Amino acid sequence: MDVLKVSAKSSPNAVAGAIAGVVREQGSVCIQVIGAGALNQAVKAVAIARSFLREDGIDAICIPSFYDVEIAGESRTALRLSVEDRKNEPALSLEAPAEEPIDV
Amino acid sequence: MDVLKVSAKSSPNAVAGAIAGVVREQGSVCIQVIGAGALNQAVKAVAIARSFLREDGIDAICIPSFYDVEIAGESRTALRLSVEDRKNEPALSLEAPAEEPIDV
Repeated sequence: MDVLKVSAKSSPNAVAGAIAGVVREQGSVCIQVIGAGALNQAVKAVAIARSFLREDGIDAICIPSFYDVEIAGESRTALRLSVEDRKNEPALSLEAPAEEPIDV
Repeated sequence: MDVLKVSAKSSPNAVAGAIAGVVREQGSVCIQVIGAGALNQAVKAVAIARSFLREDGIDAICIPSFYDVEIAGESRTALRLSVEDRKNEPALSLEAPAEEPIDV
């Protein structure tokens, strides 16, 4: 599963387009954020992406989880949002090692 | 559907307990937040509530949407998170008028 890294400076509309594209192609996408500002942009993006995906008959839902990352030798707790079609079987991929993150 | 109002000062663990209780009893709950700090506490609470609800066989998912509110005569955009069992039929209640909010 692709990992989209969203920051506090990311545009919710641009991230929404990326979310919709990956969910259409692959059925799900994982968003990773650190901090309240980044989470705010990510959740707005999911709300916008829902309207894009509804047109394709996809009921996009969001599953948050904690995820430990190491930045400059320090341990930080990131939040991950798995965005999936509600009809899909639950993805267990949040527990699996992630692929290389993609900056948005 | 009950509306839980979460603030930046809410404890994620306490909110998680409230979410799990309402989802167990009623199948879904609506969380309302204004601002990035409040959203951060709410999303952490959903991540924690997922682990509580998993023990009851409930796969809790989260659906974000925008919601216009009026505070002191000014229009603000809140975010609402509908937390539901994935197996449920999609709730349309986010579009319906909300009941009296409950402070958490």
